[in-house]
Amino acid sequence: MQMLDGKLVSQAVKDDLKEKVATRAAAGKKLPHLAAILVGNNGASETYVASKVKSCAETGFGSTLIRLDSDVPEEELLMKIKELNDDFNIDGILVQLPLPKHISEQKVIETIAASKDVDGFHPESVGRMVQGLPAFFPATPYGILLLLEHYKVETKGKHAVVIGRSNIVGRPISILLNRNDYPGNCTVTVCHSHTPNLKEICLQGDIIVAALGRPEFLKADMVKEGAVVIDVGITRVADPSKKSGFAIKGDVDFNQVAPKCSFITPVPGGVGPMTIAALMMNTFKSCLAKDPD
Amino acid sequence: MQMLDGKLVSQAVKDDLKEKVATRAAAGKKLPHLAAILVGNNGASETYVASKVKSCAETGFGSTLIRLDSDVPEEELLMKIKELNDDFNIDGILVQLPLPKHISEQKVIETIAASKDVDGFHPESVGRMVQGLPAFFPATPYGILLLLEHYKVETKGKHAVVIGRSNIVGRPISILLNRNDYPGNCTVTVCHSHTPNLKEICLQGDIIVAALGRPEFLKADMVKEGAVVIDVGITRVADPSKKSGFAIKGDVDFNQVAPKCSFITPVPGGVGPMTIAALMMNTFKSCLAKDPD
Repeated sequence: MQMLDGKLVSQAVKDDLKEKVATRAAAGKKLPHLAAILVGNNGASETYVASKVKSCAETGFGSTLIRLDSDVPEEELLMKIKELNDDFNIDGILVQLPLPKHISEQKVIETIAASKDVDGFHPESVGRMVQGLPAFFPATPYGILLLLEHYKVETKGKHAVVIGRSNIVGRPISILLNRNDYPGNCTVTVCHSHTPNLKEICLQGDIIVAALGRPEFLKADMVKEGAVVIDVGITRVADPSKKSGFAIKGDVDFNQVAPKCSFITPVPGGVGPMTIAALMMNTFKSCLAKDPD
Repeated sequence: MQMLDGKLVSQAVKDDLKEKVATRAAAGKKLPHLAAILVGNNGASETYVASKVKSCAETGFGSTLIRLDSDVPEEELLMKIKELNDDFNIDGILVQLPLPKHISEQKVIETIAASKDVDGFHPESVGRMVQGLPAFFPATPYGILLLLEHYKVETKGKHAVVIGRSNIVGRPISILLNRNDYPGNCTVTVCHSHTPNLKEICLQGDIIVAALGRPEFLKADMVKEGAVVIDVGITRVADPSKKSGFAIKGDVDFNQVAPKCSFITPVPGGVGPMTIAALMMNTFKSCLAKDPD
């Protein structure tokens, strides 16, 4: 059994980008620049944004953090986004979600120029991905592709079973694993809450992506010998033995399932750290589209 | 075995629209208006466009047919589309494909305003469909949904197997059958040329959508008893016994497969006629969005 180590691969992706950025800097080329908008001061959002800004600094990307009060009028946020859309220096725009209730997340997402939508949430980005056009892939599915690529996991002709059909993980990873490219060319089955024979279907999976958000849902008797298991779940579960009072659990019962796998992602340290690497990759690509090497 | 009769259902959809349009006319509401652009004089394209214009006339929709020479500069076609984008009276714009080689189909598709993209080919339309937002579905997959709906075919919890992953049929129908709505809520498996165990997977299908473009590919031993079979194939096969010299064949070996099915579409007369009904539905919805009942 080989661990798919997201911390390691995320670092490798960032190291590689750092080198490319340094080469561009030496050649006087435009450097990638990410703008992040943080509305209010939600604790988790603060952490996420800080870690994105830190990754930019480490990699040689420019970054701009824009803080807006939690009661900022929607119109003001949209104006700010439009300003960033028009700013040549900015390659990627991310608005950290969730947003306060009085702001329409959908409107915000659709206001970001598709050409700077490095989170890959704009309908046009999603459509381009589906149609196989050059596109920003959403961070989590893209992170999974980067993991599979790093470990040279064979995907062509494999049967991938995706549990969950969310817009941010299940649906897009099912499309990406099905595309005619590497990683991809899988036969893909998408399961969800209305799938009656989930165990039977999981047992067919050469690759299983668990993205349903139910801690330790996937058990050993649902996984065939030699499967590749990708665990997208991150749920806090009460655990009095921990100082924090909780433990982070994935959707896979890791201790049971891991011994059967050829490859498996741990939680934490698997898919999670890859999302930032994916965001950086998208921002780099956006910069490259404007000013090629 | 029940035939899914596309000619009948297409007519029923158009009759229903005709009634709605008459009600709107009586109330002085805006009437749906479709603009079709035909470049050059490809025989098949002439036929398709003529039949769309005829359907408009029969249903009380307005229609505008714009003919451009086969050597029209790309820029002129794009200008024409932009004019139609800005014309309030026009609810739907369709540019009949294929286009002459000197014109980029992708550019043409992306120039049509997403709000008038009744063919559902614009990346934004596709993305909105994937994300479950109100969207124009592409004609063939939407036609399949209308067929299933008309015959009240149960889809929830069923296993749908889609053979083919094209942008215009396989991929979008797999997404639509998987969505949380009716028809939908299927477990969906998408197969393609790299699927090694296609027969085994087809045998699991409660619903099979054959959209690979290989005449009479799906045989009886690939279909389980009671399955619903949707045949999207339309291939001309030489047939000296016919006056025309060819016969139209679907992707399903109909004579073999039909006896095992609960429902099956014939070819011709199944999915084919539904595409125009779907186009009319999209145009009607576009009109309704501007001027609700």
